[in-house]
Amino acid sequence: MGILYNQVADQLQALIREGVYRDGERLPGVRVLSRQFGVSISTVLHAHQTLEGRGFLEARERSGYFVRLPRGDVPEPAMPTHQSRPVPVSARDMALELCVDEQKRMVPLAAAIPGPEFLPVRQIQQATLWAARRSLETLDYAFPGKTVYRRQIAQRMATLGVPVTPDEILATNGAQEAIILALRAVTSPGDIVVVESPSFPGILQALDVVGLRVIEVPSHPTDGLSLEGLQVALDQWPVKACVVVANHSNPMGARMPDERKRQLVAMLDNAGVPLIEDDIYGDLYHTGERPRPVKAFDRSDNVIYCNSFSKTISPGLRLGWMIPGRYMAPARQHKYFANLATSSIPQLAVAHLLEQGGYDRYLRGARQEYRDAVERMRAAVGRAFPEGTAVSRPQGGFILWVQLPAQVSGTELYQRARAEHINIAPGRMFSTADKYENCIRLNGANPWSARIEAAIARLGQIAGQLADGG
Amino acid sequence: MGILYNQVADQLQALIREGVYRDGERLPGVRVLSRQFGVSISTVLHAHQTLEGRGFLEARERSGYFVRLPRGDVPEPAMPTHQSRPVPVSARDMALELCVDEQKRMVPLAAAIPGPEFLPVRQIQQATLWAARRSLETLDYAFPGKTVYRRQIAQRMATLGVPVTPDEILATNGAQEAIILALRAVTSPGDIVVVESPSFPGILQALDVVGLRVIEVPSHPTDGLSLEGLQVALDQWPVKACVVVANHSNPMGARMPDERKRQLVAMLDNAGVPLIEDDIYGDLYHTGERPRPVKAFDRSDNVIYCNSFSKTISPGLRLGWMIPGRYMAPARQHKYFANLATSSIPQLAVAHLLEQGGYDRYLRGARQEYRDAVERMRAAVGRAFPEGTAVSRPQGGFILWVQLPAQVSGTELYQRARAEHINIAPGRMFSTADKYENCIRLNGANPWSARIEAAIARLGQIAGQLADGG
Repeated sequence: MGILYNQVADQLQALIREGVYRDGERLPGVRVLSRQFGVSISTVLHAHQTLEGRGFLEARERSGYFVRLPRGDVPEPAMPTHQSRPVPVSARDMALELCVDEQKRMVPLAAAIPGPEFLPVRQIQQATLWAARRSLETLDYAFPGKTVYRRQIAQRMATLGVPVTPDEILATNGAQEAIILALRAVTSPGDIVVVESPSFPGILQALDVVGLRVIEVPSHPTDGLSLEGLQVALDQWPVKACVVVANHSNPMGARMPDERKRQLVAMLDNAGVPLIEDDIYGDLYHTGERPRPVKAFDRSDNVIYCNSFSKTISPGLRLGWMIPGRYMAPARQHKYFANLATSSIPQLAVAHLLEQGGYDRYLRGARQEYRDAVERMRAAVGRAFPEGTAVSRPQGGFILWVQLPAQVSGTELYQRARAEHINIAPGRMFSTADKYENCIRLNGANPWSARIEAAIARLGQIAGQLADGG
Repeated sequence: MGILYNQVADQLQALIREGVYRDGERLPGVRVLSRQFGVSISTVLHAHQTLEGRGFLEARERSGYFVRLPRGDVPEPAMPTHQSRPVPVSARDMALELCVDEQKRMVPLAAAIPGPEFLPVRQIQQATLWAARRSLETLDYAFPGKTVYRRQIAQRMATLGVPVTPDEILATNGAQEAIILALRAVTSPGDIVVVESPSFPGILQALDVVGLRVIEVPSHPTDGLSLEGLQVALDQWPVKACVVVANHSNPMGARMPDERKRQLVAMLDNAGVPLIEDDIYGDLYHTGERPRPVKAFDRSDNVIYCNSFSKTISPGLRLGWMIPGRYMAPARQHKYFANLATSSIPQLAVAHLLEQGGYDRYLRGARQEYRDAVERMRAAVGRAFPEGTAVSRPQGGFILWVQLPAQVSGTELYQRARAEHINIAPGRMFSTADKYENCIRLNGANPWSARIEAAIARLGQIAGQLADGG
């Protein structure tokens, strides 16, 4: 029984950490938990006492047990719950403003862009020198992509469980362009598209560019897109596509379990709705194995896979790729119409880097560095931010999603921080309906420094003032 | 009087060459011409006899003088005349097919892409090596463009009579993307846009991507867009933008005189309609001075200037720029939404090439080579193609527009040639309404060779068979 009540305590603690039970909330009654865990009431009571000892619960006379987070630790944000209804997307200027601000030597916590210290600078230089010497090969339009590049991509995709030939791959100007081409290939203006909520601003911008309407389906902090929510949307609306970041979503950092990926593919296949997968953070897993893309579970070629090297090798390359599956014909036509082809030199350089094994060597170190940087920033937020703050626990990537106490405006925090040259992304950028007004996103892809530590401390201080009504 | 009748003969010959009077057509009567030229009837008669002697006219008993082209010389196509009515654009797959064919070692006479022999290969290599060594500068998103690149562009624009600061310039993935961004900045889907007719397929594709309707206004073989036709379109329809290639249009090769550029700017300014200028062939003038862009006559910032290095330095760079004028805010937002930024390495490389003066040195030679290649091809067409064929006389660039006898189908010629591995662009790609069924476009940007000479001869032979009903 000793082991059993500890197991229950661990599971409850995990639920608290994941934000299922949030700070200040009352736990379900002892009988309910006894049923839920299939254990005796006395085991539940033992577990409660254990968690009280660990500082996660507080017993209140005649009221039961309440969640109380130890300072310095913080839960993950709860899964958002809201009505879903298609709305036209009108992307804000804010994303652009943020990006330009980022160049003005502000503390760069807004855009999801890796700092140069994390990038394989020496390898990029060597690969680009190699590409420059292939001068004749750099001259042509290279539509739909340099063969050497697409061959290297095909080799990588095979290791991820996605066996494709180079002819099934299109080179793109980053993943953003790939997503736009995918949307154009499967939708018409005015159509309805499902995205995760919160959703990274680039997807909302892409929907805006193509003139689509959006349904935002809640994303779970660890499991990703709610399949139950997706089913409701599919039942109620003529959905024409679904866009998902299954591995380390932006901003939540969720990783969809393989079983749910399989279900997702089956659901959309049954509904005749194409899935657009953005796997841009897939290579940046913090522990374990490279998670499989949803595309690996796709047996009917209904998934359009999009990816890029902007978060790994270099944002300045503007180099990505897509595997449009059965939507190849419209996708390649849209690529050709949009800008004919992707620049040849970055393709040759990246092909060389991949072929030489430099990319994988680099990734081994980078994953560890990103994990450390993100954990450090997460701890700093836990120390500095006011009670009631929740922070995502990403399983990959370098982004933190911070849910402030309900009365704190992330937009207000953003504006006050900006005046002090600290740049963050306010939560309302991550939805079309101002759903995340009390959230912010932090970029963790900068080497930890006194300057960043001070910025986090200052953000926490301002958030504290806002929480106190100032 | 000797001088006078020769002058009249020369002028008549020029009109015949320019296709104003076409092969087989009757010249206006002697009295009409006497009035038109302000000379005596006997001078006109002398001029007629002179032209008969030169082989350009044929006297027919009781009917007057008829144009008869000497074999080996060919007139330019006549200005197209047709009703203009806005139609939705649905770009064909054909452009894409052509582009892919071009890679299959066919004789490359279709796409308007310079052969590698005409490109500054060594300079590109050196500039790219230089860029690769600036490794840290290659890493960032570089929105809205690398400063060194935009500074070089600003310097060039100043020499063309367009003084702008680097902040007024956006880097783009070629001119095609610039045109699409310009269209998005000033129109909404369903809007009406004026283009030249015949029009290069990329513009029709761009209109299709943005979901616009088009009015095609005839283009004169030497003077470019008909301002009279434009005025009619502006009077009759709610035109939202006008796209023009004023310097060496594609496919006609026309260069709009400065006075007409000035008029064009004034007309559109009065009508409140933005002008989108594509100056991609401006640097490739065959004789005289660099023609000014229309933007140089723009006093109210109503012209959106688009250009690229795809026809000069290298198509594989995918590097262009735009000067959106007063439409900067929406243009830069659309650029950011579409793919965030343009690849950094090509921008650094081209900035270096421009700064070192390598581009101008290269251009001096290239202009001469293009002129020679185009004239050689024009003469070969004149020798090989059937009577009734007219060929453009471009003042810059490397493209020929060939108007076949009315009964010959350019599409049929394209298909038969393709079966023999000769790739040409059929005329109907240059309009939304199959207006140019009896035309083809030839790419002259390949070094003259026995293979190309044989291909032109074979095309002429097939055209001759088609003219004879087979």
